[in-house]
This record gives sequence, structure tokens and C-alpha cells, in this order.
Amino acid sequence: MRGGCPLVTLVGGESAKSLPTTRRIWKKLWQYRVDKGQVVLLVGGGSLLDVGSFCCSTWKRGISYISVPTTLIAQIDAAIGGKTGINFKGAKNLIGTFWEPQALWVYVGFLRSLPERELRSGWVEVYKHALLVGGALWEEVQAQSFREVPDLCWVEKAAEVKLKWVAQDPREEKGIRLFLNLGHTLGHVWEALSLSTSAPLLHGEAVAIGLLQEAYVSMRRGLLSPLHFERIQQKLHSEGLMAPLPPFTWHQWEKVLLQDKKIWGGQLTLPLLRGPGEVERTVVSVEELRKAVQWYRHEVGKGGIYGHSVA
Amino acid sequence: MRGGCPLVTLVGGESAKSLPTTRRIWKKLWQYRVDKGQVVLLVGGGSLLDVGSFCCSTWKRGISYISVPTTLIAQIDAAIGGKTGINFKGAKNLIGTFWEPQALWVYVGFLRSLPERELRSGWVEVYKHALLVGGALWEEVQAQSFREVPDLCWVEKAAEVKLKWVAQDPREEKGIRLFLNLGHTLGHVWEALSLSTSAPLLHGEAVAIGLLQEAYVSMRRGLLSPLHFERIQQKLHSEGLMAPLPPFTWHQWEKVLLQDKKIWGGQLTLPLLRGPGEVERTVVSVEELRKAVQWYRHEVGKGGIYGHSVA
Repeated sequence: MRGGCPLVTLVGGESAKSLPTTRRIWKKLWQYRVDKGQVVLLVGGGSLLDVGSFCCSTWKRGISYISVPTTLIAQIDAAIGGKTGINFKGAKNLIGTFWEPQALWVYVGFLRSLPERELRSGWVEVYKHALLVGGALWEEVQAQSFREVPDLCWVEKAAEVKLKWVAQDPREEKGIRLFLNLGHTLGHVWEALSLSTSAPLLHGEAVAIGLLQEAYVSMRRGLLSPLHFERIQQKLHSEGLMAPLPPFTWHQWEKVLLQDKKIWGGQLTLPLLRGPGEVERTVVSVEELRKAVQWYRHEVGKGGIYGHSVA
Repeated sequence: MRGGCPLVTLVGGESAKSLPTTRRIWKKLWQYRVDKGQVVLLVGGGSLLDVGSFCCSTWKRGISYISVPTTLIAQIDAAIGGKTGINFKGAKNLIGTFWEPQALWVYVGFLRSLPERELRSGWVEVYKHALLVGGALWEEVQAQSFREVPDLCWVEKAAEVKLKWVAQDPREEKGIRLFLNLGHTLGHVWEALSLSTSAPLLHGEAVAIGLLQEAYVSMRRGLLSPLHFERIQQKLHSEGLMAPLPPFTWHQWEKVLLQDKKIWGGQLTLPLLRGPGEVERTVVSVEELRKAVQWYRHEVGKGGIYGHSVA
């Protein structure tokens, strides 16, 4: 890579997080002889940053990169914290590393170019961050429309939550960073299962479903009050986020679930809500999660992006 | 992975360090649902440990493993220092990470099972370690037959050198760990070029060639005395290590060379010998290396494992 800066463009979205795309990027790094004295600029949404940073982390045992997130979800979540990853065998982020960028450049102007659906998906992670800290942020986000482009102030507030939690546990070894996975255990399953359908869910859409289903588990356990549960459900519903589940069999569902990275020694440990600003690590059974899914399927996700009832 | 410990066996050697083998191991980790609360035991030579540890480092963003090196080269070099890696597009270790094992178990009894050629290849790295520290170790290794099985004492002494240098610069950021690459810049090129032939060089065999060629560069620069150069050449020759080069074109040679991980910002920085125990970082040109190769091809590597003259 001498004299000039080669440009590689890729189609974004979750399907970019694959081994073939990874191989393609490695091949480009090889072709341009990218070495450890150079830096790769990654510009894109969360999926592109995930696969691009994975390639950088493994090229010559780690080269520098700078992240320029262009979506809301990437600016306040995906690009922060050094998690890289690609999907494998239909499960999310099974292959990945921790590798921080040299710098993170956030320009909120990009957000004005986002389709409404992408924007709404991003607000779900803002919502999750607000659930984690509670208080004023939580009340503010309850009153905020997910169809609006957030201003710099919103992006800062939401990114700050992620930064704060990551800083306490950068390598996810202490069980603190785990809290950021609120709603993501079931969320990842729905995202993964929808990938092979004609209507893949966006990350935030899948997380919205996961958030409510995991909140249901909390409520059933007596951790979360029915009042708080109701407020969460109403907000997500009013934003049009309570989509029907992608078609699945319980066998498929369990297979994807059991690859979750939060399983340690065979035990699934989730962050569960006690209320806005109160979250705790809890060992849950597959059965409890299944009941939440059954409840959702029969009581909630009846219309929406799939436009049909599911198996 | 419940109830029992699944066993995965792989064919060893440099060709195991490939993307297809990597994919095969990831698939096994997926199949057995290996999670972060479990540990993978890697038993084998340097290549198997390199590819196995790479898979562990990238599975669910890093799972634990224990290394059990079974060859001399792995016990005193490859298994120490947390470097993982696979080859890509014909160049060595282009894809990899740093990921330390939980434990390293060394049993010298394995070494009695090694073929003489493998043993000799391992002694080359002992020799390189001795060149780096000089003094008594260097004199001892000059007097040592590379056909003998080393005792625990030898393994300890050689491993200690590696451990000491790695500890000063675990992530290869300070230019100290670079010294361990003595002889490896050209060594890796010969190893890579020989891979696709019917007679691949063992790692140590390729490094022996690289050591002498890089020593030639040192001598031509007036860094290394002709006397020391002569002693190195005689020793490697008497151990039957001065093999002919694999067939190559200069274009191929340069293409592989220029993927070297020691290139920073387009500049190739090598460790060069001033004498046993004295090594320094030096920027060298491709032309200097080419001259050393030409000298070797015409003056040294005329017989040996390939048994024919080369292009």
C-alpha cells in the first residue's frame, strides 16, 4: 500500500459478518500489503465494523484501525468496547476477538441519512442503555419518539453508558459487561433465526423482542414489577417494535440458544431486570426462556414486519 | 461438551496451519458447544499448537487452552509466548493473534519419539537461542550433536531464553521480541516457498538457511566478524542443515518476503548479529537479502534434502 489509499467497499448488514467476507478482506490486506505501521479506516454500520475489526485484529497478529460508525446503533453501541466478531453456523459472533480501535470518530450527521427502520432499531439500544441506568435517562427515553433523528446530546448520553460499563470490565471477565447484554440472549436467537428468511430482523428489532421476553422472565420470577413490565411493553409496542417471531422449530431455537457466549460450564447466566437502573446476574433455565417465547408468540407478536402468523 | 471429553485429531505439520483446518476446528468447537467455562487441551507440535491456539483465541472471543508441546521446537520455542497463527496466500502466520495458554506442560519423554530430522530441526532453534545469549550456552551448543535427544536440562536452558525475551515484550511492541526472529525473515520465505513442493522444509531446516543468509548480510555490513560467521557456517554444515533452496523465481521470492510482519510503514527491520550474544535491529534492503541468497545458492546449498541444483 504505497502512494495512495486503496478503498474496499462491502455490502453492509448482518450477512457481511461471514467467513467468506472475512476471507475477502484478508485477501485485500494481503494484496495491499498492509503492515503494522499502517492504519485501516473502517466506515460503516455495526456489521461492517464487526467484521472489519475482526480482520484487523487477526491480520499480522493485530493492526491498527479507526472506526467511523455511520448508524445510530454503531455510534452508541457496536463501535464502543472493542468487540469484533463474525457469525458462524447460524449463531451470532461465535468467532471474534477483543481489539480496540486507535480512535473512534462519531459524526451525527450520518444519522440523517438513515431509513426510519434503521433509526428505530438504533433507538432500541438507547432504550436498553436507559433501562440499565434508570432514573432521568429512562424517563426521557420513554417520552422520546424512536422515529426521530437523535441529536448529539442523545448520542453522547447513550454512548457514555456503554463506555462506563465497558471500562469496568473491558474483557467481559468480571460479569459487569455482561449487563450490557440485557435482552440480547433471546435477541440474538431471533436475529440469527431471521437471517435465513426473506425478512431478516435488524439487530435492534431482534433485541426489542429479546428485551420484552427477558423482562417477562424477570416478572415471572417476581424480580420486575408488573407495572414496570407494562411500561416497557407499551413503549416497545407503540414504536411498532413487537414484530412476530421468525419461523422456527423448538429444536432450531434451542440449538442456536445453546451456542450463547454467556454459557459458562454449561450454565446460562443472563442479566435480568429488577427495574429501570437495577439489573442482576441470574442463572436461568432453557424452560423459563421457552415459556417467555410461548407467551410472546400467543400474546404479543401477531402483526408487523412478517405480516403473518408463525408456526 | 457434557459427560466425557471429545477428541479431535488432526494431521500435523505446516500444512495444518490453513483456513480449512481452522474452519474444521471451529466446527468441532461448535459441535461440542465448547464454552468459556471449559478448557481445550492442545497436544502436538508447533503447527498444531499454532492453529489450535488461533481457534481458541477467536472462539467466543477467547476460550482457555493448555498447551502440551510434543516436539523439541514446540517445547523450547513455538509453545512459548502466546503467538497463534495460520498461513495465508503462501506466507507464514499472516493471520493470527496473541493468546496465552492457561498452562504449558512440557514432558521431555515425547522427544524420544521424534525422527532424527525433526530433532535436528528443533536443535536449530536451540542454536538460535544460544546465538542470542552467547557465552557458555553458545559454546555448549557448538559442541553438541543435533542428532541427540536433549535432556530436560537442555530444554530448560533453551526455553528460558525464549521466556526471558518474551517477558520483556509480550506483544512485540518494543522491538525486543523481534530479536527472537533472528534468521526467520529469510527462513520463513524458504519454508513458505518449499510448502508447495514435494519436499517441504521443516521449520528449523528453513531457519538454519535463514540464519546463515542473514549472518552473511551481517558480515557484509561489517557487523559480524568473518571468524564468527565461519563458525556458524561450519556448525550448520556439519549437522547437514545447509540444504539447497527450494525452486523459486525472484518474483515469487520477493512477493513472499514483502508480506513479512517485520515490515512497518514499508520498511523491513531485521535483527542482525554482531556476534554471539550481540544482536541489533537493522533496516535492510531487499537487495542486500537478495545478494545473501545468491551467495548461498552458489556457494553453500548444493546438496542435501532436495538432491538437485535449483533454478
